[in-house]
Amino acid sequence: MSDSGTADDIMGATYRALCSHGYADLTMQDIADESDKSKASLHYHYDSKHDLLCAFLEYLYDGFVDRVGDPEGEDPRARLLALVDAVLDKPEDDSEAFGTAILEIRAQAPYEPGFRERLTRFDEFLVDELEAILEDGVADGTFDEGVDPEETARFVVTVLTGAATERVTAGRPTECTRRMLAEYVQTHLLAESPEVEA
Amino acid sequence: MSDSGTADDIMGATYRALCSHGYADLTMQDIADESDKSKASLHYHYDSKHDLLCAFLEYLYDGFVDRVGDPEGEDPRARLLALVDAVLDKPEDDSEAFGTAILEIRAQAPYEPGFRERLTRFDEFLVDELEAILEDGVADGTFDEGVDPEETARFVVTVLTGAATERVTAGRPTECTRRMLAEYVQTHLLAESPEVEA
Repeated sequence: MSDSGTADDIMGATYRALCSHGYADLTMQDIADESDKSKASLHYHYDSKHDLLCAFLEYLYDGFVDRVGDPEGEDPRARLLALVDAVLDKPEDDSEAFGTAILEIRAQAPYEPGFRERLTRFDEFLVDELEAILEDGVADGTFDEGVDPEETARFVVTVLTGAATERVTAGRPTECTRRMLAEYVQTHLLAESPEVEA
Repeated sequence: MSDSGTADDIMGATYRALCSHGYADLTMQDIADESDKSKASLHYHYDSKHDLLCAFLEYLYDGFVDRVGDPEGEDPRARLLALVDAVLDKPEDDSEAFGTAILEIRAQAPYEPGFRERLTRFDEFLVDELEAILEDGVADGTFDEGVDPEETARFVVTVLTGAATERVTAGRPTECTRRMLAEYVQTHLLAESPEVEA
């Protein structure tokens, strides 16, 4: 699509339609109704609902990378916790309905390789970011030298995925997860502090 | 329903129909096709697909409690790890398709209070079991006295939920989660061993 304004309009309409209708019942007409385009015009840009939703997942991915990538902090521990916070903090305008629609799309991954491929990118991006922070921290002595950066990164991503799923399924807030991850970093990852050794 | 044989037949048919069709497209006719009952007969026992699926979630819950409850082990650490293994080991006959159908049902929880209420029971059962084991372990000195049994139990359940979601979304095996949880127990929960103190 050459016109990025049009693409953004359609992506915004897709977001609103997913919030209103969920994934299972979503039609191209629902998306058209949320935009100033006709259904025929949507089909001119995207062959199918599947193609449009794949483009939508790519659009979300770009936003996700902007939002959570390269977290700030004075040391690897602060950067790791800032990344966790950025993932657990929903963007201000994300509704519960949107988190639900995303979980519906996640549940379609086994049937829709295009969805699985794009969803996996989110997790791989997070694993790579976390792994880089953990490697920095092991190198500069923040984290214990016994920490395996890749396995630890995957574990933290599993925790974040669990928190997102529970938010939808049980309506549970993520504060407990946040607190326990901070504690995990404190007692499991940090190198023994000089105070303890003294 | 008075005839438990009939109920078991219908639950078995529901299981097979969910594996074949997923949740989104499931009809009462699909379930009837997997059983020796007519669709009319299913409606005699259950008013709607929603009621039948609520009964199915209760049936799964009973099986889950039998399968993972009261884990064996020589001490609280062994019992905790046995519980984690029991949750992460799928029952032998559970297919990937079934895990997917369950995630689809999880994603419906915000729209279907009956589903949410029943799904929450699985998590609460697990939290209670883990919390009891953690309390035993703190009391007998296996686990560090600083361990908060309830928060730790909730954290472990979040990890297990994340692993189940990733298995569906990314087709990821659960070995890394299992390993990292064992390591978490080892370095985060266990009281300092006498060897270290000596």
